[in-house]
Amino acid sequence: MTAHTPGPWSDPVTGVCPVAETLRLLGGKHGPTLLHCLTGGEMHFLELSRALGGISRKVLTEQLRVFEAEGLISRTPKQDARRRVAYALTPRGQALGAIIVQLYDWSTARV
Amino acid sequence: MTAHTPGPWSDPVTGVCPVAETLRLLGGKHGPTLLHCLTGGEMHFLELSRALGGISRKVLTEQLRVFEAEGLISRTPKQDARRRVAYALTPRGQALGAIIVQLYDWSTARV
Repeated sequence: MTAHTPGPWSDPVTGVCPVAETLRLLGGKHGPTLLHCLTGGEMHFLELSRALGGISRKVLTEQLRVFEAEGLISRTPKQDARRRVAYALTPRGQALGAIIVQLYDWSTARV
Repeated sequence: MTAHTPGPWSDPVTGVCPVAETLRLLGGKHGPTLLHCLTGGEMHFLELSRALGGISRKVLTEQLRVFEAEGLISRTPKQDARRRVAYALTPRGQALGAIIVQLYDWSTARV
């Protein structure tokens, strides 16, 4: 038997692998990109919409709601004349964003 | 305009986000777990099969082939009486494995 880190690879109660769960949460075409965008600081809806290229208003709104419900991003209505809403990563979202950035670097590096 | 890291969020030629590509590569029920297992060192087929619980021989074989084709793991037939085959992470697989471990820690931590 070769030495290796023992499990748990899955939750002892639910049997679900937490990494697979996280990947599912991130899944979808725009999820990782959205988090990646926000690692640079807060952005308004229209800025995000532009940064994400072809995303529809509806899909972006839904994705933002999912991440807000998961505690990854915060939503702050601004008290300005344009009634803009700013989105930013929570500390938990920032921690995940930092991992996404590493995944990005890994993906683009030809080691 | 709020300061934020500019793109590229997607490959300028293919239009594909490299992180989304990596997540797709990892996707599936057993992919992340398999890499996570191997971060502890090389393992034989049967050890992997046991560590991954309910995985079928067929699915494990296929997943190992995909990761081998992607350059994430190496396959070494042992010159022993049991004709076992050892699987280990390549340097590129190790780099991804280290990120998976961080994802695991993030997933299980309640920040």
